[in-house]
Amino acid sequence: MSRKISAVAAAISLLASSQVYAAPKNIIYMIGDGMGPAYTTAYRYYKDDKTTKVVEPTVFDSILVGMAHTYPDDNTVVTDSAAGATALSTAKKSYNGAIAVDTAKKPLKTMLQMAKEKGMTTALVATSQINHATPASFAAHNESRRNYDEIANDYVDVKIAGKLPVDLMLGGGTQYFIREDRNIVSEFKQAGYQYIDDLNDLNSLKSVPAIGLFAKKGMPHAIDESPLRLTNMTNKALDLLDQDKNKEGFFVMIEGSQIDWCGHANDIACAMKEMDDFAQSIELAKAYVDKNPDTLLVITADHSTGGLTLGADGDYKWERDVVANVKASVKTITQKLKDSKSLEKDWVALTGLEYTSEVAEELKEAKSEGDKALFKAINEQINEASYTGWTTGGHTAIDVQVFAHGKGREDFIGSQNNTQIAEKLISFIER
Amino acid sequence: MSRKISAVAAAISLLASSQVYAAPKNIIYMIGDGMGPAYTTAYRYYKDDKTTKVVEPTVFDSILVGMAHTYPDDNTVVTDSAAGATALSTAKKSYNGAIAVDTAKKPLKTMLQMAKEKGMTTALVATSQINHATPASFAAHNESRRNYDEIANDYVDVKIAGKLPVDLMLGGGTQYFIREDRNIVSEFKQAGYQYIDDLNDLNSLKSVPAIGLFAKKGMPHAIDESPLRLTNMTNKALDLLDQDKNKEGFFVMIEGSQIDWCGHANDIACAMKEMDDFAQSIELAKAYVDKNPDTLLVITADHSTGGLTLGADGDYKWERDVVANVKASVKTITQKLKDSKSLEKDWVALTGLEYTSEVAEELKEAKSEGDKALFKAINEQINEASYTGWTTGGHTAIDVQVFAHGKGREDFIGSQNNTQIAEKLISFIER
Ligand SMILES: [Zn+2]
Ligand SMILES: [Zn+2]
Repeated sequence: MSRKISAVAAAISLLASSQVYAAPKNIIYMIGDGMGPAYTTAYRYYKDDKTTKVVEPTVFDSILVGMAHTYPDDNTVVTDSAAGATALSTAKKSYNGAIAVDTAKKPLKTMLQMAKEKGMTTALVATSQINHATPASFAAHNESRRNYDEIANDYVDVKIAGKLPVDLMLGGGTQYFIREDRNIVSEFKQAGYQYIDDLNDLNSLKSVPAIGLFAKKGMPHAIDESPLRLTNMTNKALDLLDQDKNKEGFFVMIEGSQIDWCGHANDIACAMKEMDDFAQSIELAKAYVDKNPDTLLVITADHSTGGLTLGADGDYKWERDVVANVKASVKTITQKLKDSKSLEKDWVALTGLEYTSEVAEELKEAKSEGDKALFKAINEQINEASYTGWTTGGHTAIDVQVFAHGKGREDFIGSQNNTQIAEKLISFIER
Repeated sequence: MSRKISAVAAAISLLASSQVYAAPKNIIYMIGDGMGPAYTTAYRYYKDDKTTKVVEPTVFDSILVGMAHTYPDDNTVVTDSAAGATALSTAKKSYNGAIAVDTAKKPLKTMLQMAKEKGMTTALVATSQINHATPASFAAHNESRRNYDEIANDYVDVKIAGKLPVDLMLGGGTQYFIREDRNIVSEFKQAGYQYIDDLNDLNSLKSVPAIGLFAKKGMPHAIDESPLRLTNMTNKALDLLDQDKNKEGFFVMIEGSQIDWCGHANDIACAMKEMDDFAQSIELAKAYVDKNPDTLLVITADHSTGGLTLGADGDYKWERDVVANVKASVKTITQKLKDSKSLEKDWVALTGLEYTSEVAEELKEAKSEGDKALFKAINEQINEASYTGWTTGGHTAIDVQVFAHGKGREDFIGSQNNTQIAEKLISFIER
């Protein structure tokens, strides 16, 4: 087909489907916490099929549409997860630490609350505690992300049109929701929510409203246990939301929470397994959109974490195989080596790296200095062997990517402020 | 206008302009060497008007359309400029060091050569020597980027349909083009080229063919001298190409060569001034496209350099004012402090930083250790004060951004291999 003919064909198909610019019915909003562009790049090389000449594109590559600016409203340039999620949920920038409140600490209405007002079914899925900064900024208001109990209270106290704000919650956080001073899980049950606390019971959830809390605080890292726990929760959430058949549609926010946590630890293998769980969750969301074309999937990050770089110290390479061979988080490796009866055997089994005399010496010395030194020594070996660079245990200001698929995706093409992503989604919710 | 009505209007306008998908007549291809996403992000904050509440978008933000994968064909994941430019000019990946040759060292036809074959006017503009890796990969073929003399020879020896391949060249490199064994500038003159060697004489260039070589090797850093030399060369190049009125159009590659060099030096102020010169060159190119809508502007990078991060060592901030106050490259500051009669006065004047007793001690100690130590000490002070992080003196593998404006820009939306950028441009040239 010539280019001119295909232009005419495109125009005709645009005319035929005059619904093309109408608002989507359902919104799937996914946030990779800390997932800057180095993470999606690393993930592509990490997953590369080495038997082929090309490096295969990832699910991220298939739906990239733009980038977003993440700076908070406090002149630091570098945002935290609270200000980031507040911008992404309310379309207003605030200060670092703010949970859906403005710089005067006044509550900002969130898009999840707007969705609930419109009669949509609402859901939050995360691998952190479900009242951690990112999900919290969709359903609570607090001057500080650290007020976990108050934030958990908001999940039952801040009613929308007389109703509880979130119909489905999956994540961690029992210590905040079942407390001595208040049992919020009981309150949810009284309000008709089904409750489970074992990830293996996911299939017992039959309908919304429901809440599943699978850890005291955050769930274990993907690399240490249940590598596909976000994928499984996403699968169940989309199933329940689909079966709900709410004619007003649904809004769900799904967070890959621990990409950020592994980034803070400068733990590359940990980060890649979190990316894998997040990527497979995206595959499910993308497939849902393909089957339900009135749905919009938008994915972004709140910021990048750790100053991750592929290549370090002047060397022009990144050793993805080294990363792929690591079997546990550095935190877990540290605990295991601390109690190890055979450093050599455990080192090789857990890291896939050679147990050279240099490594032996460094590990023994670090062990004698305590857990922190041991953690650092192990981490350095893996980062050096894989040529992975990091500049910080905190966040950086680099722009993050924006991915979109389905109805309305065109609106997200290009460079935009993080608040503009929220503005566009809100305009769809308020259609 | 409702969204439905606007969809219909969009379709009608698409039908009316059935030329919309036809190939552009002119191609402006700009490459920011080493310009990974941290550089464009940093540039936005660096240029921010602090009297306003928002951070103003940059020219990059106005035309972002996607990202590109930069890996070379040698399993290292991290590319150099030669393999990067070869991919961007020939649509074929090769090994690090390759100048438009494949992994078997066989010449690969470049898009500039194809443009010349099609009768288009061709041009190369760079702030490096004009036979440096990036421009070289458009007009020469060599197994190694280091063979500068051989590459310069190619600029007159590799004829396209009996003609010299490049009608206009602006950059550095007299030491390679005026040699004892061969005077290539004389050969250009004999072939009818106007020649200048002083940037102040740019306006004396009246028409193509022409060559301007303004330094022995690379031109001085923007921060040290002529901060807008690329902007001025771009302005002149677009003028000459426009006046040329070639009915087959023109192809020009314009490189912001030294973003990469400042990145290798981990010199943030140097990098930001290079970004500014590149950004202002882009403004001119963008304005040209707006006046000549049959032109396509595509901008990307070959890779990112230095592992630059905004924020470092756990601190959630980046001090753009510190960067803006630095008055010279760290290389130049080193030379000046080496010969300084008043370290304090020169330190404050050149860096804008306080001359604390700690700084005084470090500088004096570093001076006694030699130039390299002094360079390192100065650089560390600026990077620490601005919270700028770096992980390497080399390159990293992070995806780079793709920007496009004008006719055909839609084809560059999304995530793509660097070779795919070249494929699309070649399809326009071979229209
Ligand atoms: Zn975060
Ligand atoms: Zn380069």
